[in-house]
Amino acid sequence: MVYQVNDVLSRFSDLIVETKGGDASFSSIDAVDDYQSGSLIFISDAQALLALSSAIISSNSSPAVVVTSDDIASSIDNHDLCVITVKNVRFAQALIKQAYADYDSADSHWGMIHPSALIHPSARLSKGVRVGPNTVIGPDVEIGVDTHIRSNCVIEHSVMIGENCVINNLVNIGYLSVVGNRVIIRPGAIIGNEGFGFGQDQHGRYHRTPHTGIVEIGDDVQIGANCNIDRGTYGATKIAKGVKIDALCHIAHNVNIDEDALFVAQSGVAGSCNIGKRVIASGQTGMLDHRTVADDVILVHRCGVTEDVLEPGMWAGTPPRPFKEYVRNLNVGKNMGKKVAKLENELRELKKIMAA
Amino acid sequence: MVYQVNDVLSRFSDLIVETKGGDASFSSIDAVDDYQSGSLIFISDAQALLALSSAIISSNSSPAVVVTSDDIASSIDNHDLCVITVKNVRFAQALIKQAYADYDSADSHWGMIHPSALIHPSARLSKGVRVGPNTVIGPDVEIGVDTHIRSNCVIEHSVMIGENCVINNLVNIGYLSVVGNRVIIRPGAIIGNEGFGFGQDQHGRYHRTPHTGIVEIGDDVQIGANCNIDRGTYGATKIAKGVKIDALCHIAHNVNIDEDALFVAQSGVAGSCNIGKRVIASGQTGMLDHRTVADDVILVHRCGVTEDVLEPGMWAGTPPRPFKEYVRNLNVGKNMGKKVAKLENELRELKKIMAA
Amino acid sequence: MVYQVNDVLSRFSDLIVETKGGDASFSSIDAVDDYQSGSLIFISDAQALLALSSAIISSNSSPAVVVTSDDIASSIDNHDLCVITVKNVRFAQALIKQAYADYDSADSHWGMIHPSALIHPSARLSKGVRVGPNTVIGPDVEIGVDTHIRSNCVIEHSVMIGENCVINNLVNIGYLSVVGNRVIIRPGAIIGNEGFGFGQDQHGRYHRTPHTGIVEIGDDVQIGANCNIDRGTYGATKIAKGVKIDALCHIAHNVNIDEDALFVAQSGVAGSCNIGKRVIASGQTGMLDHRTVADDVILVHRCGVTEDVLEPGMWAGTPPRPFKEYVRNLNVGKNMGKKVAKLENELRELKKIMAA
Repeated sequence: MVYQVNDVLSRFSDLIVETKGGDASFSSIDAVDDYQSGSLIFISDAQALLALSSAIISSNSSPAVVVTSDDIASSIDNHDLCVITVKNVRFAQALIKQAYADYDSADSHWGMIHPSALIHPSARLSKGVRVGPNTVIGPDVEIGVDTHIRSNCVIEHSVMIGENCVINNLVNIGYLSVVGNRVIIRPGAIIGNEGFGFGQDQHGRYHRTPHTGIVEIGDDVQIGANCNIDRGTYGATKIAKGVKIDALCHIAHNVNIDEDALFVAQSGVAGSCNIGKRVIASGQTGMLDHRTVADDVILVHRCGVTEDVLEPGMWAGTPPRPFKEYVRNLNVGKNMGKKVAKLENELRELKKIMAA
Repeated sequence: MVYQVNDVLSRFSDLIVETKGGDASFSSIDAVDDYQSGSLIFISDAQALLALSSAIISSNSSPAVVVTSDDIASSIDNHDLCVITVKNVRFAQALIKQAYADYDSADSHWGMIHPSALIHPSARLSKGVRVGPNTVIGPDVEIGVDTHIRSNCVIEHSVMIGENCVINNLVNIGYLSVVGNRVIIRPGAIIGNEGFGFGQDQHGRYHRTPHTGIVEIGDDVQIGANCNIDRGTYGATKIAKGVKIDALCHIAHNVNIDEDALFVAQSGVAGSCNIGKRVIASGQTGMLDHRTVADDVILVHRCGVTEDVLEPGMWAGTPPRPFKEYVRNLNVGKNMGKKVAKLENELRELKKIMAA
Repeated sequence: MVYQVNDVLSRFSDLIVETKGGDASFSSIDAVDDYQSGSLIFISDAQALLALSSAIISSNSSPAVVVTSDDIASSIDNHDLCVITVKNVRFAQALIKQAYADYDSADSHWGMIHPSALIHPSARLSKGVRVGPNTVIGPDVEIGVDTHIRSNCVIEHSVMIGENCVINNLVNIGYLSVVGNRVIIRPGAIIGNEGFGFGQDQHGRYHRTPHTGIVEIGDDVQIGANCNIDRGTYGATKIAKGVKIDALCHIAHNVNIDEDALFVAQSGVAGSCNIGKRVIASGQTGMLDHRTVADDVILVHRCGVTEDVLEPGMWAGTPPRPFKEYVRNLNVGKNMGKKVAKLENELRELKKIMAA
């Protein structure tokens, strides 16, 4: 398939500052270290620009289109090259790649509703819904327009799924879960199973507390591969609009994650935590139950949230400390060692003087 | 469905200390922040009691029944309210919720043995066994009375599963595993695959050691979503009676977990560890191989068990230290800084005096 | 089945130094604490030898064959016992167990291609390929000789899988992935789903960047249960020949893991890391994105690779430090405490003297 730069310009005019080199055509979107003459590529920093220069020199061939930022564009002086200057290269890359180089998850080779899919007669599937082979859809499930449930999934009774979602292979969505629009659930994720809550008897044995709550997932959420999100003990575990959760994360019962928060892989959140808007939890972050993390907090270096984090900014360590303090503490041993050695020396000198 | 308090009193008389307000009926069990006039609710602490008071005032409506502890019951002075005093609110909640508000996992809309389930003719299924759609059950499997295997599972040959178990969707149980009675395995869990054991050749390459052992799971065990439990290299990986394992945990070959231990989400136990009775490992705990953890140890703050933990009580840190010592070490940098600054000052003063 | 020691000797002559006790037969390979009179057992250290002695005394019965190292063999003086001396006991155990006591994963009770498997007409399956029940194989998939895909898997379009692989139950392999020969993928693993990459708009909202790269898995690789391996943003996520990855690990987009590296359970590697040959990452290791780890590095105690690790040897801590330095730092608080207390004493004495 061949696309025209003019098509990009008209579809994404609000992202674009200016263009040099007139219209051009491109047939694929590629990385700077692997382009061909028909490639559109994104250059987001000086390092990538250097890689492009070297590649052009050694191959004596340019890509068709470069999408880059203002400061980098101004340093490109190649009149054969179509250069599109955008406000935000990474955002442009996301949208332009979605438009011209996205994978079609529809598995259209299996048709709309595969004959091996088992769909309860009381389930209501809207127009354009696809259901892959061996997927099981229980009673009273509702699925919105153009949503795609892929192969070998299990959607339990009374689940509501919005429009334009992609539920990947081998996913289980528990009964009564509510899923918004444009949600992507990656393979192997388990949504809405019972949480880890017990009553202990006089012998120290645990008896499960049935979890009668649900999971609510907002619009534009993404849940990673092999994640687990527990249903509420009562009420809901809530993943708000725009939240992105990476692979192998665990979100316990009654956690509340606010809009546009981001959890990197293998992070875990214990029960009833409140996570603010735009919080970023880097990989392998852990949170004790009932903790609060304020809006715009960034947790790094496998932060262990044993205490509330109530101020925005970057935090690390267990218990969590502002990043600068955490780094200072990391160095405390080394600095302290020097200070103490100096004191030991000075004291030795003093004693010598006094003994003299 | 409407239930009578008198039914609760007769079924759970051994949990109950006294009741006020006579018989009443309730139709659901709800949270204190979300009750209706037909609700039975549990009040386990002063905070919940406060929430109830506020809710009654603002809505001018009470729940039907409150189940609470002795000290809290004595402070409730509302004669319209049926108040049940119990010895242990959380334990009562577990059992009463199991009796009146539990989810029926039987997926009865798919019938007893779904026609799409593939069951080897040599498998022996007892009375009341249910098998969901697309589940595969291999040769010589034995399944006890009233056990329910849900959808898209794979039960390999010669597995023995006891009575009244629930094997949730998308679970794999490896050949020759032995599962007790009343066991719950949550979706996506992998039980009894080969462990991570190799022989290394002279070039540093790893060659797998076939694992000929099994997994043994005792009665009343719960295994969380997307967990992995490896079979033994020889002999068995043993999960004793009453153990509860949360989501995304890893239990390696030949680990031995004793009765009523509890592993919170994302914890990992390397090969051949011995874990005592009633051990609690909080989220993201890690254990090196061949370590021993004594009965009644509680591991918190992502404890790294690089050394044996032989005394009961609370431990944290890597290597594990008694919790008080761990907290003291956390503060050591700060305190040490103050002490050293004081020494530096004093020494400066001394020098001044001596110079004078 | 009964095997002869002479058969072992002829098949594994290059592993074997010498044998005592002539030919013998054995019918199983067992652990030293659980042998029978027909057992072949491996003794790899003095502790195992002691266990064998005790067991022989208490049961008055020997195993049939002992495979052990030179130094241990020389201390065994039992002429009834067949003793095979090998250069490397663990390596011999791996190969001999593979030859005589391995599990046949072929699920031959389900036939070669189970009728419930859904295989797209354009997929090309070589001779000896087995496909289990309910497995879905998409268009243009190629599968090499004698490879076995077990039950309830989903192999997406255009995947290439080599010869003699075992793809266990409930595995998902994403479109265009390339898998080498003799690869084992354990149950529940997700290979080749989209990575965690976004462009952020002016409101702080994340928009997914379609990942157009692939996953490439070399020969003799093993991927653990419930792992996740993301496809590249562009280009490939590469798992080289001989790499072994344990359960519940996460390997992000465009990571490059070189030959014979080993990742123990629950380790996570963020995007674009370069991991050298024979690197060992112990359980719950974490790596920030774009980090480099040199050949022959061993990461222990849940090392947090926030900085490049460029020298071989053992490393621990966050940031990573050579193991000796890490241990010294662990002790710094304690030692420093003593030093400072000594300084405080000496200063007190000095002051007394000066005051006198």
